[in-house]
Amino acid sequence: MSSQPVTASRFAQLQRIESSRIFQTVVITIIILSALTIGAKTYELPPLAEKSLSVMDTGITLFFLLEILFRFTACPSKKRFLMDGWNLFDTLVVVGSLIPLDNSDAVLLGRLLRVFRVLRLVSVVPELRFLINSLLKAIPRMGYIALLMFIIFYIYAAMGSMFFAKVDEELWGDVAIAMLTLFRVATFEDWTDVMYHTMESYPLSWIYYLTFIFLTAFVFLNMMIGAILEVMSEEKNAKDAQQAHDERDEITRQLQAVQEQLKELTHQVSEKSAGNRPPPS
Amino acid sequence: MSSQPVTASRFAQLQRIESSRIFQTVVITIIILSALTIGAKTYELPPLAEKSLSVMDTGITLFFLLEILFRFTACPSKKRFLMDGWNLFDTLVVVGSLIPLDNSDAVLLGRLLRVFRVLRLVSVVPELRFLINSLLKAIPRMGYIALLMFIIFYIYAAMGSMFFAKVDEELWGDVAIAMLTLFRVATFEDWTDVMYHTMESYPLSWIYYLTFIFLTAFVFLNMMIGAILEVMSEEKNAKDAQQAHDERDEITRQLQAVQEQLKELTHQVSEKSAGNRPPPS
Amino acid sequence: MSSQPVTASRFAQLQRIESSRIFQTVVITIIILSALTIGAKTYELPPLAEKSLSVMDTGITLFFLLEILFRFTACPSKKRFLMDGWNLFDTLVVVGSLIPLDNSDAVLLGRLLRVFRVLRLVSVVPELRFLINSLLKAIPRMGYIALLMFIIFYIYAAMGSMFFAKVDEELWGDVAIAMLTLFRVATFEDWTDVMYHTMESYPLSWIYYLTFIFLTAFVFLNMMIGAILEVMSEEKNAKDAQQAHDERDEITRQLQAVQEQLKELTHQVSEKSAGNRPPPS
Amino acid sequence: MSSQPVTASRFAQLQRIESSRIFQTVVITIIILSALTIGAKTYELPPLAEKSLSVMDTGITLFFLLEILFRFTACPSKKRFLMDGWNLFDTLVVVGSLIPLDNSDAVLLGRLLRVFRVLRLVSVVPELRFLINSLLKAIPRMGYIALLMFIIFYIYAAMGSMFFAKVDEELWGDVAIAMLTLFRVATFEDWTDVMYHTMESYPLSWIYYLTFIFLTAFVFLNMMIGAILEVMSEEKNAKDAQQAHDERDEITRQLQAVQEQLKELTHQVSEKSAGNRPPPS
Repeated sequence: MSSQPVTASRFAQLQRIESSRIFQTVVITIIILSALTIGAKTYELPPLAEKSLSVMDTGITLFFLLEILFRFTACPSKKRFLMDGWNLFDTLVVVGSLIPLDNSDAVLLGRLLRVFRVLRLVSVVPELRFLINSLLKAIPRMGYIALLMFIIFYIYAAMGSMFFAKVDEELWGDVAIAMLTLFRVATFEDWTDVMYHTMESYPLSWIYYLTFIFLTAFVFLNMMIGAILEVMSEEKNAKDAQQAHDERDEITRQLQAVQEQLKELTHQVSEKSAGNRPPPS
Repeated sequence: MSSQPVTASRFAQLQRIESSRIFQTVVITIIILSALTIGAKTYELPPLAEKSLSVMDTGITLFFLLEILFRFTACPSKKRFLMDGWNLFDTLVVVGSLIPLDNSDAVLLGRLLRVFRVLRLVSVVPELRFLINSLLKAIPRMGYIALLMFIIFYIYAAMGSMFFAKVDEELWGDVAIAMLTLFRVATFEDWTDVMYHTMESYPLSWIYYLTFIFLTAFVFLNMMIGAILEVMSEEKNAKDAQQAHDERDEITRQLQAVQEQLKELTHQVSEKSAGNRPPPS
Repeated sequence: MSSQPVTASRFAQLQRIESSRIFQTVVITIIILSALTIGAKTYELPPLAEKSLSVMDTGITLFFLLEILFRFTACPSKKRFLMDGWNLFDTLVVVGSLIPLDNSDAVLLGRLLRVFRVLRLVSVVPELRFLINSLLKAIPRMGYIALLMFIIFYIYAAMGSMFFAKVDEELWGDVAIAMLTLFRVATFEDWTDVMYHTMESYPLSWIYYLTFIFLTAFVFLNMMIGAILEVMSEEKNAKDAQQAHDERDEITRQLQAVQEQLKELTHQVSEKSAGNRPPPS
Repeated sequence: MSSQPVTASRFAQLQRIESSRIFQTVVITIIILSALTIGAKTYELPPLAEKSLSVMDTGITLFFLLEILFRFTACPSKKRFLMDGWNLFDTLVVVGSLIPLDNSDAVLLGRLLRVFRVLRLVSVVPELRFLINSLLKAIPRMGYIALLMFIIFYIYAAMGSMFFAKVDEELWGDVAIAMLTLFRVATFEDWTDVMYHTMESYPLSWIYYLTFIFLTAFVFLNMMIGAILEVMSEEKNAKDAQQAHDERDEITRQLQAVQEQLKELTHQVSEKSAGNRPPPS
């Protein structure tokens, strides 16, 4: 029976440590250090530096492991800890770093997972976490427009592959390659080279490219406008509702005061009238 | 006389089937399957796969034919069915697929019409249909600015073709080719190569390119701003009108209550005064 | 004395003709025809076609001359006619077309002026004229930001020419050429080729390019945002002022009615009180 | 005791000169002249012109020195003068120009500092100064999104350098070079060349490029939308608050008048009632 309060107070103490400025700073410093070692490894280094980097890497992995375990211990509800996406991501990246780098096959995977340790910066700095969450919220609203864009790409790729495959196998060989080529055209990257090549065989193929560019640019433009408007109207609604409420509140409060005064006045008048009439009756 | 209600109930039954979740899912699945077969045909395939693809193609064509007929039967007003653009498009694409692919001349047309079957996804998924409709509504508002853009392109193309045709026949040969070259310049695609070439003969021709780029960019920018503002003010107007109405309603309702109270009070006062005065008279 | 009304009615009659749908359509048709002949001249044509084109050109020039004279006659105030920029532009272009094309030196100028006849479309179609006017209004608000952009370009061009002139005389030879090269970099047109070339001599020159790109992109972005906001707030102000006025009007009208009612009530009460007191006195 | 007012009046006099239209115009003219000499030096010039340019340069440096000293003298609070960033910048640039250009090592630095004299235009023209200040205010709000962008670049650069260093040492050699290459990809500058090269070794590397482009474009787009919204809501808030205040003020003033009238009426009624009742008692 006495263990409960003791645990609770211990949780509170651990959480105080976890949310302390010093702890946060240390974790962020180690993550930046981890990012720097990853960057340093891409340079040609003398053997000594290579060695010290791998020692540092082990140290960082251990620190991250301890940090995750500490945060897991500090969290009163183990279930909520595991349900949080950021914690899962942290755990995955840290546990993944434990894969030994001796096995040549796993080396690349291990190094790749170390790269993702940089993303831990996002999960630790609250402002970045908030930014990512707001970016994630923007995705669904782009869902159907992305589908429409994909349909446009698919149709043009199928047509392009149908007509131009004989002209340039490398750019229009099949529908997948053609979609990549069309993405290149959509970014205006040497798109005239692609067009001039097919225009030698199909002199009217400029229609294909121009309609494609206009369509994608038009859909993209409208998507952007739509996104601006949607976010804007959301914020505006919230704010306007609040503001209109404040404004109306002030006026209606005064109006209620007026009505109160009138009620009292009416009461007074009718009372007086009642107190006035009896005498004559 | 008894056939009428029977037919009506049969229509209702057919429409219930048509708008059922299962029917919709089946149709969408078949359309996606149709898109996949179109994509698959762009790859080099073993004869067996080719054969099964053509069998599948026949099956899909038949399914689409039956689906259109079913929807036509389910629609109570045959005229309204034919007046709807989406239905016409569906019918055209499906009937077009019936052209036999044996005749070598018609093969390409038949394959092209099959590609457009992917667009049936737009006509079937309501969200995409809504998106397309809202995009179509955006076109007229861009009409005059597109005309202005065309005039700018035409004037610069006529000038370019007049001066630079001798320099590079392939890029500035006639007004049509010059417009294509200018579109390339407007997308910044290797535009300096074009400019450096003409600057060898006309050292001041950079003025031509820079004024063109500034003009088109400026008109485009203003078009975009205009589009954002127009859509925004439309939405804002609708919302503000609603909101202002709500707000005013609340206040005016209270004010009317005040006026009612005042009327009654005035009535009471004047009544009392009337009931008060007689005695002295 | 009688000449005045006669002239006025004649002006009215001429203006009725000028603003008639048929007259407008004819003028627009002739302008489009004029544009087509300009375009046709850029193609290699058989002698007969060349000849008929030059006959048509004479006809169009004559028609434009008569049209301008007619519009000048129809305008009651000759001074106002000449003060209007669009009329001046029309007159200049049409009179310029009268230069005989025999003199080889003047040929190019004559042909150039004919190209600008396409712009008469803008001066004749009211919607395009309105569009151009609204675009012209957008220029001053971009004045200072354009000056700032020019200063950035000038400073970077002076630096670039100072350091890189020895590396590539053609791209960085003097401050003017360097500004053109920087404009190319700002449009991302093969900018890495320019950078990789100077990085061979100055390995840190990527700082120069990246800061330049970030600066121009940042200023441009802010200019665009500023333009959107300015136009928006202008429209919003006009609309809000109107709307707020309407709204307030409704409420203040009701409040004034309340105050009127109260005045009357006060009057009644004090009158009655005055008519009540005397008896006891 | 008498020196104080004398000095104050002298300050006022000096400041009147400083802020006079003529003084401003002269300073701006000299700055533009200074910019022109900097530009002129990038051209090959005859010895005489070179000589007169260096004489002019000395004259401009002296003028700037005198102008700064004059402004320093005119400013009543010397401390506030030195605290202002623009003044510090002016002083630094002008003092820097005093470095003699004989020493070959300092020549480049001296010429570089002369280039920055063009920026004095920004510090002297109030509109440009205001523009720069408003641009500087826009930087902090982009801080976290810039950090996020950097993290994305860093992770992709680390991955790119890890996988593609063997394919192309010059583009993916280490993490810094890979970031430069990724910036190039983000500007769409010949990005397909980079991609096609790595696709020869890693056929699936298009996933790397496409995810990178989508991520950066998505984050950039959201940053832009965010910037537009933030500036807009700031302006809107300020304006709406003002407007709502004005509107409410008018209505509440009227409501207070109503309440005043009611109070008086109540007072009158109760007074009369008090003056009415006594008689019967």
